Amino acid sequence: MTNRQWLLAAHPTGPATTDTWRMVETPMPEPGPGQILVRTLWLSLDPYMRGRISAAGNYTQGVAVGGVMQGGGVGAVIASNHPGWAVGDLVESMAFGWQEYAVLSPDLPGAARANKVDAGLAPPQAALSWLGMPGLTAYVGLLELARPKPGDTVLVSAASGAVGQMVGQIAKLCGARPVAIASSQDKLDWCRSIGYEAGINYRTSTDLGADLRAACPDGVNVFFDNTGGPIHDAAMAQLATHARVVICGRIAVVDQPPEQDIGLRASARMIVTRASIHGLVVFDWWHLREAAMARIAAWHRAGQITFREDVLEGFERMPEAFVRMMSGGNFGKQLVRLA
Amino acid sequence: MTNRQWLLAAHPTGPATTDTWRMVETPMPEPGPGQILVRTLWLSLDPYMRGRISAAGNYTQGVAVGGVMQGGGVGAVIASNHPGWAVGDLVESMAFGWQEYAVLSPDLPGAARANKVDAGLAPPQAALSWLGMPGLTAYVGLLELARPKPGDTVLVSAASGAVGQMVGQIAKLCGARPVAIASSQDKLDWCRSIGYEAGINYRTSTDLGADLRAACPDGVNVFFDNTGGPIHDAAMAQLATHARVVICGRIAVVDQPPEQDIGLRASARMIVTRASIHGLVVFDWWHLREAAMARIAAWHRAGQITFREDVLEGFERMPEAFVRMMSGGNFGKQLVRLA
Repeated sequence: MTNRQWLLAAHPTGPATTDTWRMVETPMPEPGPGQILVRTLWLSLDPYMRGRISAAGNYTQGVAVGGVMQGGGVGAVIASNHPGWAVGDLVESMAFGWQEYAVLSPDLPGAARANKVDAGLAPPQAALSWLGMPGLTAYVGLLELARPKPGDTVLVSAASGAVGQMVGQIAKLCGARPVAIASSQDKLDWCRSIGYEAGINYRTSTDLGADLRAACPDGVNVFFDNTGGPIHDAAMAQLATHARVVICGRIAVVDQPPEQDIGLRASARMIVTRASIHGLVVFDWWHLREAAMARIAAWHRAGQITFREDVLEGFERMPEAFVRMMSGGNFGKQLVRLA
Repeated sequence: MTNRQWLLAAHPTGPATTDTWRMVETPMPEPGPGQILVRTLWLSLDPYMRGRISAAGNYTQGVAVGGVMQGGGVGAVIASNHPGWAVGDLVESMAFGWQEYAVLSPDLPGAARANKVDAGLAPPQAALSWLGMPGLTAYVGLLELARPKPGDTVLVSAASGAVGQMVGQIAKLCGARPVAIASSQDKLDWCRSIGYEAGINYRTSTDLGADLRAACPDGVNVFFDNTGGPIHDAAMAQLATHARVVICGRIAVVDQPPEQDIGLRASARMIVTRASIHGLVVFDWWHLREAAMARIAAWHRAGQITFREDVLEGFERMPEAFVRMMSGGNFGKQLVRLA
């Protein structure tokens, strides 16, 4: 019996392509003491992965050429050397990697830890989206960093993405007014259906500043930025006094070297508005995961949170799914379901 | 008896010049009920004034063409209709304006209030620098927003300026390691003499990034930015994890419209470092003025704070002093002493 893995073929210069990875067959791994062997059921595609395959390095160890691509997943335990885990248990971890079978060490600290998945609570793949890392990202970015007040305008880029859809809904629970930026009318219509009160299609807008002013007539109190780039610049120009900005992602510019990322320096706006900007890496906040997931699950049970997935079928489609997500081709959280 | 005033002649496009203002003679003003009449002894030159003469507007009401130029001063009471003030009292206020005689309303809220100056504590003009608004700016920017820890590297642009010299010395009192950026070796040598532990001359540096790395080998934990522009970009590239940035001033780029202020978008660095950036307007912190000035005065009595002034003589030199300050020609806090 063999395992299939996607290995990093080369560090991309510019956008990743389906040639960025290559598939190999390797022997089935064996769990050591205290470890579990899992069969992968779902794999998650997330923009943070782009940083992990950069040659330049990032905030944590990336993937070496020839190494198994990193990524989170949900699977089923098929062998256990750990007293707390039994065959058949459902498991979520950031430490799956792009492979059909993985050996996990459930007790590792932080994001490498393995978490049990309660299939009675939600579909198992929710542990990769609203009941997992993207949900926690939205939760801490909004509630720990931006702290919206009732009546605040909360502007969200990539609003229908895995993080953005949660930001909008949690902002609504805070009594704030979420405004969506997205790449199509379909996405904006759906954002409206989950609680966003206005929306801007940045692909068809001919004057992003004017459209933002119309959608945010009292200015932007919270800007939750998942894209960076020209959308960031346009949003910064609309900040209200004492605005809070969360820099969560920069998918619009992540394929270019940071030193080429040139645009508006926001210093005038920062002084005039006394705004604050916070860089966010969700892995700093893993200690809040249990508490945040309990809150989100409760909101879901109360019918206050919905979520949209975009599922491709088949392990062989992982590179395709990655490219699709990076170009905004997905509508909702990008997942791959293994056969 | 007449008063002399400098009026705004035109909103400058680009740098202000000595033709930006024109002098007029007007009748001596008379104090109304609850007001005092003061003779101006010292006038303060501060970079925030550039925002007040922009046509585009700013965070507060600016100066209209034909209006008396705004600015803080120190004077002596020559007539009083206020029970709390007597002829001969020394007074400081942001509400002097560029004029030889001013009518003040001592009980106005915030920065327009008039404060008694204790000439036993320090030379009266200290109320315009280290015992006044620039001192409060350094105090709240560093201690309320940046909050340095012992051992932190605190990088300060315009380090020998009115705010910068206080930031460096207060950082030192916190057990932090202040590093200066300034425009000449003279200024850097003096910065060293007051506690800065390293310095970079941005005018002679051929590789600001390399010089910053050498001066801040563990990265920049706090960046107190008084200049903006290319210095800002170079400093942002050196931020350490969880760095705090205070955007206090942007004198390097303040003469150009904000929408032309193009440079590095710091989003990658913000995410990698989880840094935070705070825009600072000192007038938001006026409620801390008494407490901050008491602390600073105590540090001064203990010999822990020194201060350098750059004094021009004569009311007629106000425009010259302003242009000098904006171009970095001053060495220390720019003041004008009236005859």
